[in-house]
Amino acid sequence: MKRHFADQLAAAVERLQSPVVVGLDPRWEQLPAGLRPAAGDAWEVKAEAVRRFCADVIDVVAALVPAVKVQAAFFEELGPAGLVAMGRVIASAQAAGLLVIVDGKRNDIGNTAAAYARGYLGRGQSAWHADALTVSPYLGDDSLSPFVDVARERGAGVFVLVKTSNPGGRMLQDIVSDGRPLYRRVAEHVEQLATETVGKCGYGSVGAVVGATYPAQLAELRAAMPHTWFLVPGYGSQGGTAADVADAFDTRGLGAIVNNSRGIIFAHERPEYAKRFGESRWQEAVEAATREMIAELRREVGYRTTQSE
Amino acid sequence: MKRHFADQLAAAVERLQSPVVVGLDPRWEQLPAGLRPAAGDAWEVKAEAVRRFCADVIDVVAALVPAVKVQAAFFEELGPAGLVAMGRVIASAQAAGLLVIVDGKRNDIGNTAAAYARGYLGRGQSAWHADALTVSPYLGDDSLSPFVDVARERGAGVFVLVKTSNPGGRMLQDIVSDGRPLYRRVAEHVEQLATETVGKCGYGSVGAVVGATYPAQLAELRAAMPHTWFLVPGYGSQGGTAADVADAFDTRGLGAIVNNSRGIIFAHERPEYAKRFGESRWQEAVEAATREMIAELRREVGYRTTQSE
Repeated sequence: MKRHFADQLAAAVERLQSPVVVGLDPRWEQLPAGLRPAAGDAWEVKAEAVRRFCADVIDVVAALVPAVKVQAAFFEELGPAGLVAMGRVIASAQAAGLLVIVDGKRNDIGNTAAAYARGYLGRGQSAWHADALTVSPYLGDDSLSPFVDVARERGAGVFVLVKTSNPGGRMLQDIVSDGRPLYRRVAEHVEQLATETVGKCGYGSVGAVVGATYPAQLAELRAAMPHTWFLVPGYGSQGGTAADVADAFDTRGLGAIVNNSRGIIFAHERPEYAKRFGESRWQEAVEAATREMIAELRREVGYRTTQSE
Repeated sequence: MKRHFADQLAAAVERLQSPVVVGLDPRWEQLPAGLRPAAGDAWEVKAEAVRRFCADVIDVVAALVPAVKVQAAFFEELGPAGLVAMGRVIASAQAAGLLVIVDGKRNDIGNTAAAYARGYLGRGQSAWHADALTVSPYLGDDSLSPFVDVARERGAGVFVLVKTSNPGGRMLQDIVSDGRPLYRRVAEHVEQLATETVGKCGYGSVGAVVGATYPAQLAELRAAMPHTWFLVPGYGSQGGTAADVADAFDTRGLGAIVNNSRGIIFAHERPEYAKRFGESRWQEAVEAATREMIAELRREVGYRTTQSE
């Protein structure tokens, strides 16, 4: 059967009763002792440390969450060697049964956007074989079309930045014209694209990035975008809570996946886990933090069936 | 002496009397026969073909232009192998005396933007050692700051998307609020950042991407952004002419660099050169197209001294 990203995501969230995405943001200088390279190490050494760290995180979380979000920046920071590592991390995550969202916030015009789309999207059909990619809307509708076309053709997904989690996001995104903020225009266009790519689950393969740090807008956009999956960053370290994101979900507990990066992968640095596990047992901290976040979200989000942990 | 991107660019443009940037957009399926890989070839084979093609272009243009713009998308399309090739292309171009602008249109929030900035910007100080990087402003001022900080510290440059050359760019960039279009707000912010990073040449190391396809806006923005270098795409294949971009320059012939990608690197496909050189003499077509564009711009842009070709 043809793959459909939105349906695969819905099936995985329902099966696991878990809308949590683990963000692989492997800042090399923050890796646990034992894996952490020295500042003077070659890029290849840093890249291999980052790869191994991500593989170890994947081992722990693969049974608990539907997807990981691979933050390209922390691999790109290490140059070509870092991107070789990123390719291996994507493959490891998919081999472990996870969906992989590459967080690259890419975009360009026309044929160049098509090159990004062809390069990133689709298992077995692209060099990066990602299940989904984040894209930026500043270049407008004709820059988004190539991603939508390739995603549809290959059963992959796209998440368009709508309302980002950082304070500065307001500078452009909240500009009001004709009585509505700019992010609402982007939202309308994305909802249209979601409708055009809708699957059996009722959501489309074109989704939106909407930050957990703006709960009122999250609720407003949920209502305005009934066919759009939300990828919600900003949980945990950036201040977003389970209560803040509750309105992003539909009554089935679908419609949103909530990302946590530092709060999970570097959980050993959080006071509550540092004491309990220490740095050497960092993988146990990752597992505890993942389970805790799942439990927090289950309490706020109604799933049809309750499944024991 | 400490490097300063804006000053280096000004010096190179004045020395060569040439504001032309050659865009390295090496679509593998469009490479000249003899270099062109087959669709079924491995990514590594395609990446090596792309690398060699770019090296051959660099050999021809290094003496004629101040900079090349490396379009990340066409390297990323080939996966990790493509990015290994991109690293080698950047090194080849710099070894040949060119400034290298990586056109990645990157951005993200806070620490993640800093990772992109640290990874791309600065010779001898980053994994990619680029002289400048293009960045997207959708995430707002706090997402641009890390690039500006790293650029200033390392003498590198940044070009922020302001008014892009594609028709769809109007969707968000031309939204009017409080009597002015959105791109003017971005422009104001970029001009402020340019002022803060200004060099001896009168321009700052934070520049703007402004398309050749909107000549009126190019002139309007030139007046509004007196300290900002413009990187102007859209010349040639996209329809921009020398007359269209003339207003982007100051009276010294500085302030703008004009990119041409397909029209130069794939000049052998243009009717006038296809006939004259044929596909096998594609490097001669590259040279002729580069010299022709330089001559066109020299006719429109007043340089202080006239230098023979």
